Amino acid sequence: MADLKEGRYIESSAVGVDLYQGVAELPIVSPHGHIDARLLAEPAARLDPPGRLFVTTDHYVVRMLHSQGVPLERAGLLSRDADGRDVDDRVVDDHAVWQLLADNAHLFALTPTGLWLRETLATVFGIEEPLGPHTAEAIYVRVEEQLSTPAFAPWALLDRFQVECLSTTDAAGSSLAAHRALAVSEPGFRIRPTFRPDAVVALDAVDWRDALSGLETAADHEVGDYASFLVALAERRAAFKTLGATATDHAAMSADTTRLTHHDASALFAAALTGAVSDADARRFEAHMLNEFARMSMDDGLVMQLHVGALRDHNRPLAARFGRDIGADIPVATDWTRGLRPLLEACGSDPGFALILFTLDESAYSRELAPLAGHYPAVLLGCPWWFHDSPAGIDRFLDRVTETVGLYNLAGFVDDARAVTALPARHDLWRRRTCGWLARKVDAGLLAEEDAHQLAWELAYGLVRRAYRLDS
Amino acid sequence: MADLKEGRYIESSAVGVDLYQGVAELPIVSPHGHIDARLLAEPAARLDPPGRLFVTTDHYVVRMLHSQGVPLERAGLLSRDADGRDVDDRVVDDHAVWQLLADNAHLFALTPTGLWLRETLATVFGIEEPLGPHTAEAIYVRVEEQLSTPAFAPWALLDRFQVECLSTTDAAGSSLAAHRALAVSEPGFRIRPTFRPDAVVALDAVDWRDALSGLETAADHEVGDYASFLVALAERRAAFKTLGATATDHAAMSADTTRLTHHDASALFAAALTGAVSDADARRFEAHMLNEFARMSMDDGLVMQLHVGALRDHNRPLAARFGRDIGADIPVATDWTRGLRPLLEACGSDPGFALILFTLDESAYSRELAPLAGHYPAVLLGCPWWFHDSPAGIDRFLDRVTETVGLYNLAGFVDDARAVTALPARHDLWRRRTCGWLARKVDAGLLAEEDAHQLAWELAYGLVRRAYRLDS
Amino acid sequence: MADLKEGRYIESSAVGVDLYQGVAELPIVSPHGHIDARLLAEPAARLDPPGRLFVTTDHYVVRMLHSQGVPLERAGLLSRDADGRDVDDRVVDDHAVWQLLADNAHLFALTPTGLWLRETLATVFGIEEPLGPHTAEAIYVRVEEQLSTPAFAPWALLDRFQVECLSTTDAAGSSLAAHRALAVSEPGFRIRPTFRPDAVVALDAVDWRDALSGLETAADHEVGDYASFLVALAERRAAFKTLGATATDHAAMSADTTRLTHHDASALFAAALTGAVSDADARRFEAHMLNEFARMSMDDGLVMQLHVGALRDHNRPLAARFGRDIGADIPVATDWTRGLRPLLEACGSDPGFALILFTLDESAYSRELAPLAGHYPAVLLGCPWWFHDSPAGIDRFLDRVTETVGLYNLAGFVDDARAVTALPARHDLWRRRTCGWLARKVDAGLLAEEDAHQLAWELAYGLVRRAYRLDS
Repeated sequence: MADLKEGRYIESSAVGVDLYQGVAELPIVSPHGHIDARLLAEPAARLDPPGRLFVTTDHYVVRMLHSQGVPLERAGLLSRDADGRDVDDRVVDDHAVWQLLADNAHLFALTPTGLWLRETLATVFGIEEPLGPHTAEAIYVRVEEQLSTPAFAPWALLDRFQVECLSTTDAAGSSLAAHRALAVSEPGFRIRPTFRPDAVVALDAVDWRDALSGLETAADHEVGDYASFLVALAERRAAFKTLGATATDHAAMSADTTRLTHHDASALFAAALTGAVSDADARRFEAHMLNEFARMSMDDGLVMQLHVGALRDHNRPLAARFGRDIGADIPVATDWTRGLRPLLEACGSDPGFALILFTLDESAYSRELAPLAGHYPAVLLGCPWWFHDSPAGIDRFLDRVTETVGLYNLAGFVDDARAVTALPARHDLWRRRTCGWLARKVDAGLLAEEDAHQLAWELAYGLVRRAYRLDS
Repeated sequence: MADLKEGRYIESSAVGVDLYQGVAELPIVSPHGHIDARLLAEPAARLDPPGRLFVTTDHYVVRMLHSQGVPLERAGLLSRDADGRDVDDRVVDDHAVWQLLADNAHLFALTPTGLWLRETLATVFGIEEPLGPHTAEAIYVRVEEQLSTPAFAPWALLDRFQVECLSTTDAAGSSLAAHRALAVSEPGFRIRPTFRPDAVVALDAVDWRDALSGLETAADHEVGDYASFLVALAERRAAFKTLGATATDHAAMSADTTRLTHHDASALFAAALTGAVSDADARRFEAHMLNEFARMSMDDGLVMQLHVGALRDHNRPLAARFGRDIGADIPVATDWTRGLRPLLEACGSDPGFALILFTLDESAYSRELAPLAGHYPAVLLGCPWWFHDSPAGIDRFLDRVTETVGLYNLAGFVDDARAVTALPARHDLWRRRTCGWLARKVDAGLLAEEDAHQLAWELAYGLVRRAYRLDS
Repeated sequence: MADLKEGRYIESSAVGVDLYQGVAELPIVSPHGHIDARLLAEPAARLDPPGRLFVTTDHYVVRMLHSQGVPLERAGLLSRDADGRDVDDRVVDDHAVWQLLADNAHLFALTPTGLWLRETLATVFGIEEPLGPHTAEAIYVRVEEQLSTPAFAPWALLDRFQVECLSTTDAAGSSLAAHRALAVSEPGFRIRPTFRPDAVVALDAVDWRDALSGLETAADHEVGDYASFLVALAERRAAFKTLGATATDHAAMSADTTRLTHHDASALFAAALTGAVSDADARRFEAHMLNEFARMSMDDGLVMQLHVGALRDHNRPLAARFGRDIGADIPVATDWTRGLRPLLEACGSDPGFALILFTLDESAYSRELAPLAGHYPAVLLGCPWWFHDSPAGIDRFLDRVTETVGLYNLAGFVDDARAVTALPARHDLWRRRTCGWLARKVDAGLLAEEDAHQLAWELAYGLVRRAYRLDS
């Protein structure tokens, strides 16, 4: 793949390339991802060196290497003790981590990870030479050199990539210091926080009390019971909004949203404060809180994102040694229809409420998600998530949902990126695939070509701005 | 999409167009749908005006509009009081309802609803101009003019569309007055009733007693217990057969067919008559009755259609205001394998019994439905249903089932239509898509071209006549 | 389909044919199937006559005929009495069985069964004339003549088909007499046994005690309790290894692998020895034993194959008359993520352990199986199994798993064949389809053409040899 052909990934007639050319240069709108706000708030910040940037901090890469028997230490991860503290004081050899990637580059053939890597090296760093065992060191040097220049400072890259707006994901207890600084240095909320309260809701998590303390501190409000917990959450939501937030984000293994009585919710919360709660009770509380957060969103207008279906830390022995987000989360089937019913009956028809759904269970696309979004005014469908954000995954999503919901019940594209350098490749792939998909519908007589141009624009730009209320 | 190209929706080489030309003019066989028999029995009957015909009575259209925040009242629906009576004495402005559709026509891009609408306007009404905000009124006038002419009387349309036979769907307690009239005026059972007993089986439904009274009246047989209930059902089945019925139809959320003892079934029925039954008991009775209806079909030869997987009235607050069939039914996953086992072990190998299965859970196509139909002599697979009766849905169905069951275990196509005007577009889309799909198999070397012509005929005409025993 | 075109089934540009030509002549590696070792150990052995070979012993053919109402007796099956003994002393007319297939050849259009039959007749027997009612007898004579020649002796066919190695599947209690003979006559383990202990693990099966006796005899070790059961199993695994085995095989309806305490496992085993165990307890014991077999594999290095998801003998009345493997096994949904967790947390990161997963639930490909194989070093994905080993099934598998796991976490192809004559068609179809699939990725710009050649070789030959440790 020495040269990247212009029509790559589009898989259609000339119509597809034509559609793509109409959207290729649109600004990037990125309302959901995991880039650290401090990188953007601090002018002197620089990205990690190549090995850490492309391997250690990328769970897609780490999991593939691990699946082929590579110990996580070699990918630069540090093991921890029982209290979660790093006990590995080894200095990671970043060149060796990069060489590991290069030596295993063949594993990534036909994966989006391999595609993003090639695209990023080519379009961000100008390196079209294939990465392999023998080219690794030369490419390392070229990447590392560029990363150390001001042109590759995070903020400079945002400008170069035409990032119009970008949202980070922030714990409910985050001080939002970086966002406060950004609000001063860059008025207009080009960078926005997103309110993610998962950690304060997981009553049985080992770090729940720490998370709760963080919430108390950030809200400057003591949390002694369920009622004060709700007050603190509302305070933080208001603070997030003040700094430009338009959305919240919630992750859960199940789609259950059964509401508890205030009395039962209070009792569960009290039990967690004074002792331990069972797994079942913790899950009931989480389900209840999803319902409660929907009500808060009806009040304050924050768009609610819901990511369902990951069984986190499937490999507990490995999690005990290396912590979370190391590529060992495994999806399970999701019952969206029964799970969301309590939430949707209560809030789903409210014109002020918006709920964006992300799934790891593709079988639910046509069976449950499209029918739900095709009925409830509040529901929009998020783009293919995680394992499914891929060339064929995008086709499957569009094929399975649009015949029931059309395109105007979709929420456009979010990149879910952890690295600034990953942004262009992800948005460009979405644009190429959606244009190719639309072109095939034109060729089949299912769509007028002039309408296809409008829909390509919506998929690349219009839908996501409306869904995340970025114009309001 | 100003002009409709001849090869539209076929998506294949010239072989596909050639196959399509061989079946395009075949008569329409429509053994399952929801057209009101009275429209056909009454020579003076006329179809609804445009807004009511294309919007208010079409739950696909209503749900899409609602999903984008349009209140159901604007789509012409009338709200009801707690007793289910219309309380909205507003006179619906049919022009406004039509304008609403036109203003939102862009929502239906890439949906079968949009495709059917365009095809129907073009091929039934001769209107190729795209429907939009500015063309709405002119198109309304042209459609409305035609609808009021004798050439657009329901029966005249059946002739024009070459509808060879058409079955309605009728409650077990229906008097079948219209069918009796038709049997006199049009001998030969071109129009047949279908026995649908769901309402008398749902012991916990609010209108169960009304439905039961209807059954008693129609059967002229008092229903005081389970035994007399079975007698009344058998009487109605016989009456339906006398008027040309060849099939029954059953809808359930679950595929469970566990049989109760006669004693337990009698006790549940008695409990329902004298008081309330729990949700769980009502579901057990429904499962039992599916099993019992299969036994009745073994006796009387009526083909049993089974539609599984819709959680009806997901949005109960809306159902309380507007009633059923407003686009708020949402599918759930279905366990066909375990669910149907009791029924199939009892009846599935009987040469006189036929069971046609319809699913809303596409993941079951290859996993459960094709293996079941590929073993049990009684089982045939119905075509893609509801959300899945669409261009890509038809491909998915054929791709996932035929490799296991071939084509001769399929039941052909049913349109499930609620409007006479909808018939041509639905059958034509099925014919185009199946021919395109067959042509791609020919091009891949998987099918001989001469065999493809035979299979195209079977898919368009032969299979459905045999499956529904229309020749007997 | 009078002539078989060279590029058949490839469905791609010239690149696909080019890729195929590079792998078409590679030796066949067949590490999983159901060919009887005695056919290979006995020089005078001959294959069954045509009707028995192509119909009676092929459950794909039997099930299709049965689904269309053909009594199993006509397909050559013999009914049994309550003790499982054949009571049908009828002499089967093999010509009539073959004629039955020919009369129903149209049923197999678009099925892999039809494709394999046509390919086998053409490429193994030189018969390109279509099989049908009028050609049946002439083709019978030609097939039967060839089958009786030494050139069609099983061993001769292995040479002609370039079968490099082939594994049989053998009960834990098998004496392995044929394999011992083969080890003498054909050193080098071209034919290997596979250890399949399902029958001795199913505590509630009617033939469990017979299977257990077989194990005792083969192991020459009395099994009086759970501890001695484990010893006997370990002995047999060692004996299998001595005769060239590199793998075990396990089938289960559920993926559950929950471990019991030694005490609980012992108690269940003792209960089974002295009386009956419940269905639930039998399933708990099976789950436990999957976990235990994984531990044994960690010790002895035998690759563990796991086939999950078939509800066996769905049609019990028919099983009572004709026994197992008559085409009445029906898949159910599988929860791989939760089910395998106990096994994988215990063994999944062990570098000496390998686990190859086969599913009947395609919805799990992208949701669970690819993420599992893309994390755990031990896990590899087996090729599409049973109903899914088909042209479109192969595409679905590759499309859904490779974007998450790449190709190097796949275990290549196994044919699962029951007849020696079936081998070439199955491997050839896999090679054609994988090459066509790779070529489409090349055309889409997702894969470099030179890399595609390497991956085609891996899919046809390299992966399976490594996965099954055939080089060690």
